Amino acid sequence: MPEYTVRFLPSGRSIPVPEGKTILDAAIAGGIALRSACGGSGTCGQCRVVVRSGRVDAPRSQRVRPEDAALGVVLACQAVVQSDLEVEVPEASLLSEHQVLAAGRARGQTVGEGEGEGRSEGERAHLRPVFRKTFLRLPEPGLEDASSDLTRLYTALAKEEGSRNFQVGLELLRKVPRLMREGAWQVTVSCVDARGMTEVVDISPGRDDTPVYGLAVDVGTTTCVTHLVDLLTGETLDVRGAYNRQARYGDDVISRIIYADENDDGLVKLQGAVIETINDLVAGAASHLGIRGEDIRVVVAAGNTTMTHLLLGVSPTYIRLEPYTPAATSVPPVKAREIGLAVAPDAWVFCLPGVASYVGGDITSGVVATGVASSDDVVLFVDIGTNGEMVLGNRDWLLACACSAGPAFEGVGIRHGMRAMKGAIERVEIDPSRDAVVYRTIGAARPAGICGSGLIDCLASLRRAGIISRNGSFDTAYEGRRMRAGDAGPEFVLAFAEETATGEDIYISEPDVKNLIRSKAAVYAGIRSMLRMVDQDISDIKKILVAGGFGSYLNVRKAIEIGLLPDLPESVYRYVGNTSVEGAKMCLLRREARREVELVARRMTYLELSVGNTFMEEFVSALFLPHTDLSLFPSVSA
Amino acid sequence: MPEYTVRFLPSGRSIPVPEGKTILDAAIAGGIALRSACGGSGTCGQCRVVVRSGRVDAPRSQRVRPEDAALGVVLACQAVVQSDLEVEVPEASLLSEHQVLAAGRARGQTVGEGEGEGRSEGERAHLRPVFRKTFLRLPEPGLEDASSDLTRLYTALAKEEGSRNFQVGLELLRKVPRLMREGAWQVTVSCVDARGMTEVVDISPGRDDTPVYGLAVDVGTTTCVTHLVDLLTGETLDVRGAYNRQARYGDDVISRIIYADENDDGLVKLQGAVIETINDLVAGAASHLGIRGEDIRVVVAAGNTTMTHLLLGVSPTYIRLEPYTPAATSVPPVKAREIGLAVAPDAWVFCLPGVASYVGGDITSGVVATGVASSDDVVLFVDIGTNGEMVLGNRDWLLACACSAGPAFEGVGIRHGMRAMKGAIERVEIDPSRDAVVYRTIGAARPAGICGSGLIDCLASLRRAGIISRNGSFDTAYEGRRMRAGDAGPEFVLAFAEETATGEDIYISEPDVKNLIRSKAAVYAGIRSMLRMVDQDISDIKKILVAGGFGSYLNVRKAIEIGLLPDLPESVYRYVGNTSVEGAKMCLLRREARREVELVARRMTYLELSVGNTFMEEFVSALFLPHTDLSLFPSVSA
Repeated sequence: MPEYTVRFLPSGRSIPVPEGKTILDAAIAGGIALRSACGGSGTCGQCRVVVRSGRVDAPRSQRVRPEDAALGVVLACQAVVQSDLEVEVPEASLLSEHQVLAAGRARGQTVGEGEGEGRSEGERAHLRPVFRKTFLRLPEPGLEDASSDLTRLYTALAKEEGSRNFQVGLELLRKVPRLMREGAWQVTVSCVDARGMTEVVDISPGRDDTPVYGLAVDVGTTTCVTHLVDLLTGETLDVRGAYNRQARYGDDVISRIIYADENDDGLVKLQGAVIETINDLVAGAASHLGIRGEDIRVVVAAGNTTMTHLLLGVSPTYIRLEPYTPAATSVPPVKAREIGLAVAPDAWVFCLPGVASYVGGDITSGVVATGVASSDDVVLFVDIGTNGEMVLGNRDWLLACACSAGPAFEGVGIRHGMRAMKGAIERVEIDPSRDAVVYRTIGAARPAGICGSGLIDCLASLRRAGIISRNGSFDTAYEGRRMRAGDAGPEFVLAFAEETATGEDIYISEPDVKNLIRSKAAVYAGIRSMLRMVDQDISDIKKILVAGGFGSYLNVRKAIEIGLLPDLPESVYRYVGNTSVEGAKMCLLRREARREVELVARRMTYLELSVGNTFMEEFVSALFLPHTDLSLFPSVSA
Repeated sequence: MPEYTVRFLPSGRSIPVPEGKTILDAAIAGGIALRSACGGSGTCGQCRVVVRSGRVDAPRSQRVRPEDAALGVVLACQAVVQSDLEVEVPEASLLSEHQVLAAGRARGQTVGEGEGEGRSEGERAHLRPVFRKTFLRLPEPGLEDASSDLTRLYTALAKEEGSRNFQVGLELLRKVPRLMREGAWQVTVSCVDARGMTEVVDISPGRDDTPVYGLAVDVGTTTCVTHLVDLLTGETLDVRGAYNRQARYGDDVISRIIYADENDDGLVKLQGAVIETINDLVAGAASHLGIRGEDIRVVVAAGNTTMTHLLLGVSPTYIRLEPYTPAATSVPPVKAREIGLAVAPDAWVFCLPGVASYVGGDITSGVVATGVASSDDVVLFVDIGTNGEMVLGNRDWLLACACSAGPAFEGVGIRHGMRAMKGAIERVEIDPSRDAVVYRTIGAARPAGICGSGLIDCLASLRRAGIISRNGSFDTAYEGRRMRAGDAGPEFVLAFAEETATGEDIYISEPDVKNLIRSKAAVYAGIRSMLRMVDQDISDIKKILVAGGFGSYLNVRKAIEIGLLPDLPESVYRYVGNTSVEGAKMCLLRREARREVELVARRMTYLELSVGNTFMEEFVSALFLPHTDLSLFPSVSA
């Protein structure tokens, strides 16, 4: 069978494919994450690529305009490779972060291991996946060595694994004698590390190279993100995200806990909703890659403490009640079938351990993924999602705290607030002299509301324009039609009804502004409280890592201007994207990583902000733009 | 397909069987425990029954004398049912109760820990059962200590347990928050050690003193013995034993392995039979004590390697084929429900690890129970049951070997051999001058055959009387009606037909004697081979422990006279009874004991007697009474 080579541009990666395969097949084989919402049926039109040279057999598609087709544009899923090819992949066809899904990390950043693309042989050698296959040539038994089949297997395995602590289930044990002889003392053994043991879960006679997959999941309150990983190569084959279907039962963790408490089958419904969300992502990934869900043999999930409880169907009741005690911060591994996850039924699901009710496995995962816990310098890790969680520390100490800062910046509690989705105003400039507002929306759509980054811009611009004072009060002397009196106080209109998607004016009100100021004050006060606890100063922070979907689109300068983040040079800041899923992926690919996350969870000191006066003092001082103490914000003109 | 009914007498039980089945099949189906040493191959002749009415198709057998055949005697395993039948089952063909059931250790002996009766409070304090309940007063959570419920539990438990490695299942985790609050932060926690973890398996609010039970099982080839133990007090509440129902498929491990190999569901049947045996014992114990089987929360089983395989339903095929490799010597713990044991379904069943195909968990268990592995002096541990296993060693080294000595001393392969059951001749004195024999039978019943201790007596007496020479040849010059010529050579009659239960003469023939000499030679040669391997002498042995059902009825002096056991003062010898079940019980009551058994299994060097020349040389030298080298038996006059 002839084999052709498809060279993808701009990466330059060359992928050999047998005759009859499509460009999409080649892309998948090469780990190039083409968008493909329809799963390769030619209907979504997302996998458009340009054939620069070579021949393909591609049917005409409604999804490709004739003039584009003339230039070589084809749907990768429909184009059968007929010769060696050069194919250009437009940015727009790559699975890139939907702004919320923020699947991977921000571009250009390297965070720990686990990068799928361009993995070299050398890197492969460092793969120590939590589930792996090992080919063994066993010494044949003889009278001089009549040790049992299992001992023979364990002895050979110990040399490969560097472990001696093996376990095998009864069902597999019953097959061991047959399988070892069928393979003439050559077998491929699948192992997974769980509960402090190395479990032997599969034995195939002879050499077995069939791929096995692992799933890393970020179980977010708003969004769930999955990375599907080839455990033999370490490559990330599929990245996708979806809104957490629990949202129908409440936007934030508190409202979901209340739902669980106050409805007979509330907990069951919430668990079902998040499992459904993940199962859909798994089904999508599996169909995209042409594999089965059952080929996924291990799952690592990172979520905040409430999400972890709900994923497992464990009641989160006491998370919300003082003194805020979760059922567990470090939860035992469970079998996929126990929680209804549509992967291999006996796959272990490891939920990464958290620290407290409001500092969960998503944070410890991120801390390990970004190397905070091994840094010489003091690092501040900030994850402002639905909640605001922060970690301060280095190799010697780690502090964590949480503040309910998030919802406002996710649009919750703000009259025209919305999530960072299509139509959300994400950039705002105000020219008071012309009573003009310039805004940009996600997807360049008609505006439907204001998302977090838009709200920060808005606050900064209003302040800079003198429309609001340092304490957030509106200057009602402003002249222009955008300022008006509303039911709840003064309002400033960003977009008038005729421009908007909703047919309503989109404005920000004084209560909105005060709400946002409280949120930003909580974050900043949390940072200051941690610093005070370890007797450090803002200037001692050498690096600030901004994580979470929110982080990727945050304008740091504006965030400093409103006093949300410390006034440090922008070079100190780094966007690290979804470190929760990255950490989970590290745990799939390097079996020591899970232990590291556990150690980090144990090392981390949780600072309960509601205890003592420090936080309240700091919070009150931060209720100004940017702050009461302007010396903390030298770069911001008052 | 026509179906016939077989009515068994004297029980009167009627069993329907389809055409083509044998009487043995009908007996098995009806739970009638016919003896069947050969596993149904028609060679052992034990399953003789009398067809009173109806037609069978039975080939002529050497095992049935023509005159008996004329009276309707057939081998049940060979007789194919051709019509409705009435079949009489002679007592001698039934597996029946016998002395071995006296299960426990020989009276008056104390072996290690685990003595149930009269346990004092002080002894109770040393109880560290593998399954236990711990009452905990937990500190109430507060803002200063809002650690998770599970962490709170583990922290308190760690203080009691001295372990930090806890595990909890998802189902129980889901109940943790409720149970801890229901008990107002006082709970009783049930834990069990398994797979290197301490598993939390139950939590009750408040103080919970309801008793929990453990089961120690000796899974013997011939007999299964159970000790039911109160895990809170350490007391042994019930001891019982029963024939292993596998006996219907073969007397010894080899014939059962053959049965497993050569019948479609042979393995399933064998597993079912032993589980049935144990379940009956459990049911008996439970009804005796007024508890439920489910109250038994943990099981420790000790058996030889084949029995362990069959208990778990793991194929023992390769145990019987050179190089005799079992599937596993150290088997993983399994849940009771996985093997159908009628105790708590999630109870762990721990099978004690063995060393090789013919040195199993019953031996390692015995070695730990008797303290061989921690002895300063060199100890010889001898277990002559269906098989003969021996251990030689002390705290520094341990050697083990196995020889197929057993069956002859259990009556197998001896014309009038039988197990130590009612009617078995167990003591023999011969007065050649009067052509008289004085014998004693078990239960003072009419003699039905000769059991192991009777055979040893017999050999010693025949030798002493000069009726047989040192190599076992009969002195045909003997004058008296007890000596006569048989089909297979000279025979010596112990009991004439008119005195016996069978209506046949009970005699011992020259081939029987040679067979017994081979068996005793194998044991002695095994002991000598081990001594040679470690460059030690008979006189270096400071203690000889005789274990197993056989041991309890062995006349040591006579055993020395025939050269079965070393010529050492009787004070060196100690009967230790069923150390297999004692060791299993120790593992129930002291959780470190299982680890000790594992270490012993690992430390023990298995000496494969079929490799090298040592054993063969020793064996040939031992084919005399007592031995070729009389200097080895100074106390025995030649």
